[in-house]
Amino acid sequence: MHAIIATWKMSYPSVCDAQHLLQEGAAAGDAVVEAITQIEDDPTLNSVGYGGLPDRDGHVMLDAAYMDGQTLRCGAIMSAEGIRNPILAARKLCGRESNCVLAGRGAELFAIEEGLPMRDMCTHASMQHWREAIRMEHRKLSAYRDHDTVCVLALDEDGGLVAGTSTSGLFMKAPGRVGDSPLIGSGYYADARYGAAAATGVGEEIMRGCLSYEIVSLMKRGASAQQACEEAMNDFVSRKLELGEDAGSMSVIALAPDGTFGAATTLDVFPFTVGNESGVHLCAVKNGVVTEVTEEEVAKLP
Amino acid sequence: MHAIIATWKMSYPSVCDAQHLLQEGAAAGDAVVEAITQIEDDPTLNSVGYGGLPDRDGHVMLDAAYMDGQTLRCGAIMSAEGIRNPILAARKLCGRESNCVLAGRGAELFAIEEGLPMRDMCTHASMQHWREAIRMEHRKLSAYRDHDTVCVLALDEDGGLVAGTSTSGLFMKAPGRVGDSPLIGSGYYADARYGAAAATGVGEEIMRGCLSYEIVSLMKRGASAQQACEEAMNDFVSRKLELGEDAGSMSVIALAPDGTFGAATTLDVFPFTVGNESGVHLCAVKNGVVTEVTEEEVAKLP
Repeated sequence: MHAIIATWKMSYPSVCDAQHLLQEGAAAGDAVVEAITQIEDDPTLNSVGYGGLPDRDGHVMLDAAYMDGQTLRCGAIMSAEGIRNPILAARKLCGRESNCVLAGRGAELFAIEEGLPMRDMCTHASMQHWREAIRMEHRKLSAYRDHDTVCVLALDEDGGLVAGTSTSGLFMKAPGRVGDSPLIGSGYYADARYGAAAATGVGEEIMRGCLSYEIVSLMKRGASAQQACEEAMNDFVSRKLELGEDAGSMSVIALAPDGTFGAATTLDVFPFTVGNESGVHLCAVKNGVVTEVTEEEVAKLP
Repeated sequence: MHAIIATWKMSYPSVCDAQHLLQEGAAAGDAVVEAITQIEDDPTLNSVGYGGLPDRDGHVMLDAAYMDGQTLRCGAIMSAEGIRNPILAARKLCGRESNCVLAGRGAELFAIEEGLPMRDMCTHASMQHWREAIRMEHRKLSAYRDHDTVCVLALDEDGGLVAGTSTSGLFMKAPGRVGDSPLIGSGYYADARYGAAAATGVGEEIMRGCLSYEIVSLMKRGASAQQACEEAMNDFVSRKLELGEDAGSMSVIALAPDGTFGAATTLDVFPFTVGNESGVHLCAVKNGVVTEVTEEEVAKLP
């Protein structure tokens, strides 16, 4: 039994490779890293890694996290610049008993000391996006301009269950802004006994509900991955509406130790990729229902 | 009905003042800020604010968080230098829809822009601690060398419920290290309907169990504050033991919307302060039992 689930259409190509690794017996952590590093390295995917979206000051500042559901250990970096593959830094931090979450310059020093590749993560296209934005005043910040955080959950043949996230965060964010992606329980959580979950969207909203931990907690209490995603999302959205807010922009995925998966969203359409013994499928939550995406629909998806 | 609970013996004097404010009808947030700023300003309390414990490179890097249980909004700063009262920065960030969690230089810029007082947070004593430590090689890092994170939970007459935390983090931590204190769900959580919780100890352990969110989640499901603290702590410690680890160094406090409180710890003794209509009491969890501390015992407490 193995399975992998990842956010957004952009994850499809790399999930195919990661699924192939799992099929050959690779560990869940290797599959997560394979899927995420490919996306980080692709300059055309402008919400993650190289070519990411700059902050208000024109710097591409990256967040990433990695959690091993068997040891319950995590590693994360936040607001870090110039680390070619943030997910590799997060994974290396995951084994540590102390100092497993590092911000800013400390995260960069760690990556350099560990010999991880460094690079200028800002592309010509990143800078163009930024210059356009600063020409427009009072621009309202929002996620989902193109796509968003890549979150990957993988289960391997040995019962290993791993969660990984990587993002450049909200476009035009304030310097030092940290979203949900590197925050355990909010952007990701994994417990090999009960399941794993991760979230993408506006981090400032997701963290208020600790959505990833809540989903795993519901799975611990007997909910399926799909039930847990829906219940956690519905509860939190109800609360937001009671507070006079709108539903916001949030999407979640979950993976159970039996390989079943779930997803929920406040968007009209939330695409994600699933890989398992039957192959790799591009799916979407549309009007609250999970369906496989047809060839014709692919181009229209975010 | 009003109540306040705070970690460690060091919180006793400032909780007396904060309790007085609540008695006079102040908002929970004002009580939390009163209790924490006094501790931040005291150079003799070397785990929080001015005179805090330096990181490996000799810098006093501060974490703080603030959460409003009525709006479910939070604000936090992490790995920030030179902000005289980190809790004030966290509280100011709490109202923001975007960019409410800031790391490093971004947090410092925010504080400066907001006109918050800045100062060199390193005292002669901080530097002496640091010089001694770097002379000793392979020193094992541990929390509780003296005291630790100050966490304050307050309930006001209008049902307001607020959580606040402030710390200089693990002594001799790696540059950029972030503990549980500024991480929502791990170091703190507050939901005015169900309760608030906060944690102190080794952040790298606390965050793996999202202990504060778990405690509030248990209260949501009907547990009392004390039951929730014990159940969350016992479950997580059992899991750590199954993983071949020791129980670790973790302590938690909780406050229910009816003013009842709870506490649990993996230490032999964990002192905390409680204020309510009956006055302010120094209490402790000893061998799993919460008791009021006698005059003779006070001097022996951490």
